[in-house]
Amino acid sequence: MEDFFRLGAQVFIEPGQDKERVEKWFGLLAEHGMSTSRIRLFEDHIREEGQWNYELYDFAFDMAAKYNIKLLVTLFPSDNSVGGFKFPRDEKHLNEIADYIKNVVRHFKNHPAMDCWVLQNEPGVEERTKAGLAEEKYKAWLSDKKKNSAPAQEYISWELFFRDYTTWYLKWIGEQIKLYDTQNLTHINNHQLFNNLSQYDFNNWMPFLSTLGVSIHASWHLRAFDRKQYTMAIAAHCDIIRQASLPKPFWVTELQGGNNIFSGFEPMSVYAKDIAQWVWTSVICGAERVIFWTLNPRGKGHETGEWGMITYQDEPTERLLMSKKIADVINENKHFFKKARPLEPAVTLLYSIESMLTLEKVMSNEFDDGYKGRKQGAHILSLLAYYETLLELGVPCEIKDINEFKWAEVSLGHTVILANVVSVFSGMTDEICTFVENGNKLIMTGMTGFFDENMQNVYQQKSPFKELTGADLAGFEFVGEYGEIEIDGFKLPVHMLKGGLKNYTGKIISKCKEKVTGVRNTYGNGTVTWIPSLIGLGSWQNSNEALADFLQNELSKSFDCLPFLFEKHLPKVIMKVLEFEKEYVSMIINTNNCAVEVPLCVHTNNNPVVIFGEPEQIGNKIIVNSGDTVIIKWG
Amino acid sequence: MEDFFRLGAQVFIEPGQDKERVEKWFGLLAEHGMSTSRIRLFEDHIREEGQWNYELYDFAFDMAAKYNIKLLVTLFPSDNSVGGFKFPRDEKHLNEIADYIKNVVRHFKNHPAMDCWVLQNEPGVEERTKAGLAEEKYKAWLSDKKKNSAPAQEYISWELFFRDYTTWYLKWIGEQIKLYDTQNLTHINNHQLFNNLSQYDFNNWMPFLSTLGVSIHASWHLRAFDRKQYTMAIAAHCDIIRQASLPKPFWVTELQGGNNIFSGFEPMSVYAKDIAQWVWTSVICGAERVIFWTLNPRGKGHETGEWGMITYQDEPTERLLMSKKIADVINENKHFFKKARPLEPAVTLLYSIESMLTLEKVMSNEFDDGYKGRKQGAHILSLLAYYETLLELGVPCEIKDINEFKWAEVSLGHTVILANVVSVFSGMTDEICTFVENGNKLIMTGMTGFFDENMQNVYQQKSPFKELTGADLAGFEFVGEYGEIEIDGFKLPVHMLKGGLKNYTGKIISKCKEKVTGVRNTYGNGTVTWIPSLIGLGSWQNSNEALADFLQNELSKSFDCLPFLFEKHLPKVIMKVLEFEKEYVSMIINTNNCAVEVPLCVHTNNNPVVIFGEPEQIGNKIIVNSGDTVIIKWG
Amino acid sequence: MEDFFRLGAQVFIEPGQDKERVEKWFGLLAEHGMSTSRIRLFEDHIREEGQWNYELYDFAFDMAAKYNIKLLVTLFPSDNSVGGFKFPRDEKHLNEIADYIKNVVRHFKNHPAMDCWVLQNEPGVEERTKAGLAEEKYKAWLSDKKKNSAPAQEYISWELFFRDYTTWYLKWIGEQIKLYDTQNLTHINNHQLFNNLSQYDFNNWMPFLSTLGVSIHASWHLRAFDRKQYTMAIAAHCDIIRQASLPKPFWVTELQGGNNIFSGFEPMSVYAKDIAQWVWTSVICGAERVIFWTLNPRGKGHETGEWGMITYQDEPTERLLMSKKIADVINENKHFFKKARPLEPAVTLLYSIESMLTLEKVMSNEFDDGYKGRKQGAHILSLLAYYETLLELGVPCEIKDINEFKWAEVSLGHTVILANVVSVFSGMTDEICTFVENGNKLIMTGMTGFFDENMQNVYQQKSPFKELTGADLAGFEFVGEYGEIEIDGFKLPVHMLKGGLKNYTGKIISKCKEKVTGVRNTYGNGTVTWIPSLIGLGSWQNSNEALADFLQNELSKSFDCLPFLFEKHLPKVIMKVLEFEKEYVSMIINTNNCAVEVPLCVHTNNNPVVIFGEPEQIGNKIIVNSGDTVIIKWG
Repeated sequence: MEDFFRLGAQVFIEPGQDKERVEKWFGLLAEHGMSTSRIRLFEDHIREEGQWNYELYDFAFDMAAKYNIKLLVTLFPSDNSVGGFKFPRDEKHLNEIADYIKNVVRHFKNHPAMDCWVLQNEPGVEERTKAGLAEEKYKAWLSDKKKNSAPAQEYISWELFFRDYTTWYLKWIGEQIKLYDTQNLTHINNHQLFNNLSQYDFNNWMPFLSTLGVSIHASWHLRAFDRKQYTMAIAAHCDIIRQASLPKPFWVTELQGGNNIFSGFEPMSVYAKDIAQWVWTSVICGAERVIFWTLNPRGKGHETGEWGMITYQDEPTERLLMSKKIADVINENKHFFKKARPLEPAVTLLYSIESMLTLEKVMSNEFDDGYKGRKQGAHILSLLAYYETLLELGVPCEIKDINEFKWAEVSLGHTVILANVVSVFSGMTDEICTFVENGNKLIMTGMTGFFDENMQNVYQQKSPFKELTGADLAGFEFVGEYGEIEIDGFKLPVHMLKGGLKNYTGKIISKCKEKVTGVRNTYGNGTVTWIPSLIGLGSWQNSNEALADFLQNELSKSFDCLPFLFEKHLPKVIMKVLEFEKEYVSMIINTNNCAVEVPLCVHTNNNPVVIFGEPEQIGNKIIVNSGDTVIIKWG
Repeated sequence: MEDFFRLGAQVFIEPGQDKERVEKWFGLLAEHGMSTSRIRLFEDHIREEGQWNYELYDFAFDMAAKYNIKLLVTLFPSDNSVGGFKFPRDEKHLNEIADYIKNVVRHFKNHPAMDCWVLQNEPGVEERTKAGLAEEKYKAWLSDKKKNSAPAQEYISWELFFRDYTTWYLKWIGEQIKLYDTQNLTHINNHQLFNNLSQYDFNNWMPFLSTLGVSIHASWHLRAFDRKQYTMAIAAHCDIIRQASLPKPFWVTELQGGNNIFSGFEPMSVYAKDIAQWVWTSVICGAERVIFWTLNPRGKGHETGEWGMITYQDEPTERLLMSKKIADVINENKHFFKKARPLEPAVTLLYSIESMLTLEKVMSNEFDDGYKGRKQGAHILSLLAYYETLLELGVPCEIKDINEFKWAEVSLGHTVILANVVSVFSGMTDEICTFVENGNKLIMTGMTGFFDENMQNVYQQKSPFKELTGADLAGFEFVGEYGEIEIDGFKLPVHMLKGGLKNYTGKIISKCKEKVTGVRNTYGNGTVTWIPSLIGLGSWQNSNEALADFLQNELSKSFDCLPFLFEKHLPKVIMKVLEFEKEYVSMIINTNNCAVEVPLCVHTNNNPVVIFGEPEQIGNKIIVNSGDTVIIKWG
Repeated sequence: MEDFFRLGAQVFIEPGQDKERVEKWFGLLAEHGMSTSRIRLFEDHIREEGQWNYELYDFAFDMAAKYNIKLLVTLFPSDNSVGGFKFPRDEKHLNEIADYIKNVVRHFKNHPAMDCWVLQNEPGVEERTKAGLAEEKYKAWLSDKKKNSAPAQEYISWELFFRDYTTWYLKWIGEQIKLYDTQNLTHINNHQLFNNLSQYDFNNWMPFLSTLGVSIHASWHLRAFDRKQYTMAIAAHCDIIRQASLPKPFWVTELQGGNNIFSGFEPMSVYAKDIAQWVWTSVICGAERVIFWTLNPRGKGHETGEWGMITYQDEPTERLLMSKKIADVINENKHFFKKARPLEPAVTLLYSIESMLTLEKVMSNEFDDGYKGRKQGAHILSLLAYYETLLELGVPCEIKDINEFKWAEVSLGHTVILANVVSVFSGMTDEICTFVENGNKLIMTGMTGFFDENMQNVYQQKSPFKELTGADLAGFEFVGEYGEIEIDGFKLPVHMLKGGLKNYTGKIISKCKEKVTGVRNTYGNGTVTWIPSLIGLGSWQNSNEALADFLQNELSKSFDCLPFLFEKHLPKVIMKVLEFEKEYVSMIINTNNCAVEVPLCVHTNNNPVVIFGEPEQIGNKIIVNSGDTVIIKWG
């Protein structure tokens, strides 16, 4: 396969492995349509009492080269944890790390297999410990902020600092590499994305990265999701990382390739059908590389005998064979895949770091109640409810960082959804207003805009959203796990909070008893729909059906320009499309336990050819079996 | 309204609020029948780098005065927690606090709105940390105790010290105020009462307080209760604080006035019907003031947008309107309310600090089993089972501290219930015997008397209760979550422990197979009923029905002198009565999900007039709708 | 009763007890067929400010002597915990302990009641804290190990050290005693056996012990078991400790004798039927002494009023009376019991300390998922599944430490089961092969042999088990809580892991779709059966029925030489047998809620006489009522 797309798998190199086995592994990659691999370069394997001995890895590099495998090399300075430390302990430690980087970069940079340095495995920590070097640097950061009269953001300042601190260290690693090597690529793979997103400052990382990546392991990262939602969750990962990486490409740096035993919060087996769903989803979302974790299982310590795509006798599993099959299909259609890009989105979903951090800091995040609306994930899960529903309608959408969104540059007629964005930077209000005024649509739901960046409630003062929305937020009613509101005649499930409005100029579209619970307001050439109730989480926890009705009604105009669309909402069936000059490849995945009849609304005259999967077709209806992935080329 | 009763609400003053809004808030209080308010005097709002600037609060005080609002002012020295620190860190900190008190007391003491200093917001801690100043003072306390040959109470000595330590600090605050102001009132509001009671030494607080108060927020403080029990729980709070405060008045310093979002262990919305239930309950229990938390929602940080009785646009909610309605009724009947007092109790329930502390120290309190009978709350919940059952019979009762109870001074024919009082001070046995001998009734249930003050089991020696009860405790059978015993023919649910007796002179009233499980014994002119099984907790967890039968049978004689009584036990319907010279105001609240027919046994010829609520009446039967509060004046 | 067996109960001596009561207690022991007792010798009771005062215990010893009671004396240096500290804090503390031992041993060693020193109450800690003396000694231990080129075992080195550290301290105590007393017995009672086993090095303890013992309290130690499994669990305790103690006798040092209140993780009442089950089980397993915890309940602090076999008035409970009844039966048959030994086992189950420790260290042991197969107990519970099933077939088996097992010395035709022995010392493979080659049978299930002692997976390399088993492990499928495999036509439940094999020379006995899931291989004169799926845990969690079928089929040949056998698998009915020169005493216990008809396969012509219990008999069928214990003598 050529450069436009590469499949690959991590080869885990450890002391004591037979050389024949190592060669066999790289050979297996090549045999199965793979042209990239990743290895972890343990300092502890190559340095003993100050002496370097690269033999173990020299051989692996040579074998990679022999089979034309491009190597991602993860820097891994001396450590004894499973995933690697994330920050230096102190300046001395920093110097040791610099020395490691100097040595390994100089040694390997010109090897023909060498392709890309992975700066650190999976940045992002479970706990932002206030100690050591971090604490020191925090003081400087605070005084700097004061000097520059930046907004205090006192409630989340430690967390905001920590994000900068992460950037500082990753950038430092990048600089160390650059001292010796300016040729090879650089890369970082994020992980536990829906939690750690608040620690990542992608925009400030991209200057020192060639590509951005992500680890997606169902068993580690998808606890918030039902088994049937795994593929949708993987799509969301890709869509977030793609946007963050643009215009540079993005990679799925780690994709779960094998079964769990002792690792994984939600252990599982991976079957060939999973591989089909996950790889195709990554491809159709635009990933330039997809690399499994792992080809061969680790042989010692944690993760031993887990995660692999080959047996303990180094024979391919059904998972590896499926991966090969996909590689073949892509290869056969390389002219299309080489140039194709994900379809232009009809809807933009914006996520907000500040909202995530604020939700980490609310009191209830520490309490033992079960209300998801009061926990860390309340914003992201709200957003994902819309994301899932749109995919289940076959509608393309994108997920972007609100702080990087160019409100003024959007082409007219676009829709932005602010799903429970509890904290909105006060400086952004004007931009939002202009966006609507220009002739776009804004949908605000849940607690969107409740706090500014200082955890000040703007609705209790002269609300900055008053003219935009034609209404004021009066207050919230706590409705427990389940409530309902009617919007435009659709009865939507509400989680926890039902917001009441004082309406001035809006058109009332939702009422509960005497209380206004939703308005639609015309502002300039655009409109705003405001439903200050947790309908996203309500749908997430119950059913997307009514949310789909509401969105179809709300967005129907934008749907006309789409080449394909489901004729109706199909729970747990998702569609994603690639396009190049009016040619398309569409992917439909059915994760239900039974076959589903998919009625397609087709706005193109292109000729459909099934290039992967075995659906039954009757006219515009496609029957997709349980767990199946169907790829159709419309040429 | 005059001085005998005041309704009010906390006005939350923060920097950055418009002056018009602040004025509007005090105006709203006045408009809605309120004549008192509480504010929190943050040092952090009025002192910057050593300079005092009282402007923010000066204006608030002026507005309070303008609308004739009497202010409770909560001292709040510099801090960054939500509820305020509870103890000084060290002597230096103590000096800083003294300086704050000096400045604010001297500045505000003569303001016409100034009425009462609240020494500290909600004393009582979750954890009694053994460190810093506390640890230092503990050593001195221990050696003092030794010097005075006080009982060691080694198992609970740290906890007993901590109670004294709390008293010391609160008293110190009171003394600081007195240095500059001997005119205004002083007050403390307790909280999380059923846990923190063991930290409170009310008897030693009252010398430096004008009134005692309590915070009662369903969402924070009533986790042990079902929604239908909230009003009963509020009554219990009032009854405990009233007794502790006598002969001084007591206040409900904080009553939940609005809805939760991120605060509250058990978040909820408060409706107008709740306000009616809770305020009337406070009033009929004899509260002199009732102050909501809060009028206006906080605008920043924790609790933002929560708890308020007005909307974010400063308009009254249905909750505020309901409160106004109650104020009007009280005002219309002020001649009665001014002089009325709660009805004389037929029964006294005694709680024991030592028993609470002992239950904190038993091994099982740390275990993860679900048996409530082995956890911290086992004594208090047992007591509340009797309290609830008596209210559901319409029988007046009181809740008192066993250490303050004057056994010798009780008028004859009285009943005391010792519900699972696991630890009884050995010095008290004689008083208890004399109480019965004089012609009173004692009911002992559960593990009552099991330990003395040193966690010594008195029943394994020559039991001090042997002559009194005519029996000895033989041992306990562990019956798990549910067992049963029959007493006088009534089958009562038993939680966890079934106690067996060796009977000598008692009349056996309960037997299981061959084991005696209950006796009634005549002692002097009185009688003792002893059921050493956890029937209180058994009823609490299952149904009060049989416990009501047992109590009706046991206490029937005392019921004759009551002016009103339910003809039968009515689950989740409670009655409370105020009296003045044979005139009465009775309150009936039905927290069931359906209307209940209440058959009243009336022993007065007074004429009933409904002054609040809309019951249907048929003869002596009153139909009270779901959630309704009915107030009847019998003039 | 003579020396060959003694029943007894702990007498809890505390300051303040009446002398008459103390005498009464020892008298009660004698009256109820008991001839041994245990007391705890609190330093805190006999030393005040450096002065020794032995009065309290002198009297107790005298009373014991008066009633011919042999005393176990538990050393208990000054402490304030319930169960006693387990390690010295530092060298100074060690000297203090030595001083205590010197004084008490010299004082009591020649007392006629003095019989046995218990070195420490219940060694074994919940957490192996890395601090203080332990940390110091760890460094020396590590460097010693390095010097001796011992295998690193880096993943479990701290835990292995800790086992040695425990041995060091216990041995030190033994040596202190020996300085002054070489006459009396020495003893240690273990506890929480299925967790703490990995801390115990019995083999290195026995040189300084006369007997080994164990505490078995249903409420503390049997959380992993259902109420119906308690007796089986007690049998397992006895069987493990007996093997560890051989050729010296073993004692049940603590057996729960009374009810719980505040102690016990799983509190309960003990009834006469429990006493019958538990004491008989201990006796038939070969215990030389059985000592209840306790005769009299403690009177102060933790455990007060709990655990006792007499009432608070010092009268015998039904439990004590039942114990007396058993003592009488043993006494009446003393000629048999004196010489009898447990039947020779048909099957050996091997447990592995390394496997337990490895399972403590796997990542998932810290996770909050519910899969027992990924938690600390995965090996021991697997083993117990086989143990329970064999007892439910009436088949005698033994449980031994794999590291002490003499593979070469086994008489031919024996069966060893390695149930999920996840870690097997690499040096042991050859011995295992020889064992099979000699003509024995090996059954390997679950993850047996997965790791070597360094957590290296041997199956990913040239497997040392390849020739033995005729197959290789290909990998595991994670099947969640429940899966199934068919073996020889029996459908067995599988927990979590289904292992696939690559078969070379084995006979395939189990297949799932295309995957081989079990083989039987001939090796030398023996055979190996390999089922690399968690069938033990699968059966444990669901039903033993199919596992019983599989074992009956697998082991049928070995059954012929057994004197008795159930004709079929009887869930929750167990049989154990004592033998002496072709005479037998068999015990059958039915813990089901209903009576069970037990069809016995009898291979002896002896005459059966029921010596305890009241079964109905019809031919070879015995009907055992719910909860009953039946003891039959075949003379």
